[in-house]
Amino acid sequence: MTLHSSLLVVDGTQYSNWNRQIFEEMRAGGVSAVNATIVYWENARETLSRIAGWNALYEQHGDLVMLARTMDDVLRAKSIGKIAILYGLQNCSPIEDDIGLVEVFRDLGVRTMQLTYNNQSPLATGCYESSDSGITRFGRVVIKEMNRVGMVVDMSHSAERSTLEAIDISNQPIVISHANPSFFHEAKRNKSDDVLRALAARGGLVGFSLYPFHLKNGSRCTPGEFTDMVARTVDLLGVDHVGIGSDLCQGQPYSVLEWMRNGRWSKETDFGEGSANNAAWPEPVSWFRSSAHFPNLTSALDKAGFSEADVAKIMGGNWIRILRDAENSRDRHAPAAAGESVVS
Amino acid sequence: MTLHSSLLVVDGTQYSNWNRQIFEEMRAGGVSAVNATIVYWENARETLSRIAGWNALYEQHGDLVMLARTMDDVLRAKSIGKIAILYGLQNCSPIEDDIGLVEVFRDLGVRTMQLTYNNQSPLATGCYESSDSGITRFGRVVIKEMNRVGMVVDMSHSAERSTLEAIDISNQPIVISHANPSFFHEAKRNKSDDVLRALAARGGLVGFSLYPFHLKNGSRCTPGEFTDMVARTVDLLGVDHVGIGSDLCQGQPYSVLEWMRNGRWSKETDFGEGSANNAAWPEPVSWFRSSAHFPNLTSALDKAGFSEADVAKIMGGNWIRILRDAENSRDRHAPAAAGESVVS
Repeated sequence: MTLHSSLLVVDGTQYSNWNRQIFEEMRAGGVSAVNATIVYWENARETLSRIAGWNALYEQHGDLVMLARTMDDVLRAKSIGKIAILYGLQNCSPIEDDIGLVEVFRDLGVRTMQLTYNNQSPLATGCYESSDSGITRFGRVVIKEMNRVGMVVDMSHSAERSTLEAIDISNQPIVISHANPSFFHEAKRNKSDDVLRALAARGGLVGFSLYPFHLKNGSRCTPGEFTDMVARTVDLLGVDHVGIGSDLCQGQPYSVLEWMRNGRWSKETDFGEGSANNAAWPEPVSWFRSSAHFPNLTSALDKAGFSEADVAKIMGGNWIRILRDAENSRDRHAPAAAGESVVS
Repeated sequence: MTLHSSLLVVDGTQYSNWNRQIFEEMRAGGVSAVNATIVYWENARETLSRIAGWNALYEQHGDLVMLARTMDDVLRAKSIGKIAILYGLQNCSPIEDDIGLVEVFRDLGVRTMQLTYNNQSPLATGCYESSDSGITRFGRVVIKEMNRVGMVVDMSHSAERSTLEAIDISNQPIVISHANPSFFHEAKRNKSDDVLRALAARGGLVGFSLYPFHLKNGSRCTPGEFTDMVARTVDLLGVDHVGIGSDLCQGQPYSVLEWMRNGRWSKETDFGEGSANNAAWPEPVSWFRSSAHFPNLTSALDKAGFSEADVAKIMGGNWIRILRDAENSRDRHAPAAAGESVVS
């Protein structure tokens, strides 16, 4: 199967050292939209500068990329040959202690927010903590506020109990934007069958990760092993509840990996999913080193026997559905963001 | 003349202690849109909380007020019986030292920004400084960036040379959102004929202030004296270059006046336009104490002999034109804000 030009390809997580070459690789790979991580540990003020950084990229490379505030913007971007950028927060640090900042960042284009990044946060427990106390008081009201303004809860880096509780509390489907099932590869960042089943039962989505620490055999994972995982997950959840969240981090120096792992929270080095002897960025799988390789995923799914309709859902359709539903559920009193109609 | 229901009334400056009663007075007064000051000395982070505060007002009083991102939103608000809120910054403090924050705040709904508030700023000189060095290096590039993203330059609290230079540098019309001509009443905040003529020659607008310190005879200024000022200004500039910027500050405690005057910049008390013996909020004129009194302005203009078409321009039409022109001039590469069309 060749990559159909009508296919909507949505990557649920990337954090690259964005530049023209990377945008050109996205276009070469037929990528329609990317949920771009804009922060890990940044506070509100710092997050504004990250958004300003993207605005500068739109000025410099406006022929290739544009901000998408809505799924209609994603379709429009595709029709004019541009890649649509969505914003995702990998942590709740941008809202600090202020529930009002959820809507402010939603209005700036943020579509997803993780409640935790590895550690305990004011909202929930991260996947590297030894004890998981579940969703906090602040966490409960933030989830409701995210539901109200149409920002999707993301539990990729959260612990099990917290994740199950977030699924239950949210009145909108939530996502695990970038992680794999534990049955495929045991890792603190991967997810149990229980979590995945609960996620899907409430309409949510898991985005499969290509980050080697999340893969069976790491950097040597084959396309066939990857699609076997996809097939088994589809058997478990149904084809409407899976997508891609590649976790591509192209061109990032080691200092960025240190920032992700250590932020400002520790003076000792935390190696995250690596170790002292294996501290560096992992070597990517040979068949997925950049966004230009998305056609390898599509053809592997085809080879694994998925129908064209199912490939379309996995490669982007499910992400579009979840994000559009979040847009439509936005509280009637919320001021309309671009492209959304004003309801009287 | 009665207040025509089709009249678009735009107040170019208010900073009230917003609540339901004030919004109801706006509706009673036939106000279509208010450019609401959201900060005087607040930095970027603090400004986000001011915006969050407005979001809370939309949640609580969504039947009366809504954020307007465009002039089409203003018309829509009027058609559904709501007051449209625009955001104005009375100082450049929200952008700190980061030109990228101009667009970020524009995307959050900010339509006007003063380059200075009384004092020297990184951009220009304020009207209370003894020496005016004009537009700074940072000021020049910020004006160009404001032009690019469609944020209108406001020089109400700026000094003469800086104002003349801003008019010259900007490739879009600028405003003096709330001040009166010096010929009417001599005050550091009021403007010379030279400034007003230069402003109008480049398509700009002055919004007449009802703040007693800006009025002849202060709190005892009569409607007739006020409309005489309007008439003489229209003779000087033409009817397309004047509007209203009432500077209403309803229900604000003295502490807010102190914040406006002193911010965090001095440990000594600065009394602004007042004095040690006259430190408090001035008593408003009897015929303009709240937004409910806008019909008094309209009828005074009618009584002074202005045509219905001219009254419509003065009471709101000119503000709508300036703000719409700013929207339309927005750089083609800038991501579209709500209601603005995406240009490929």
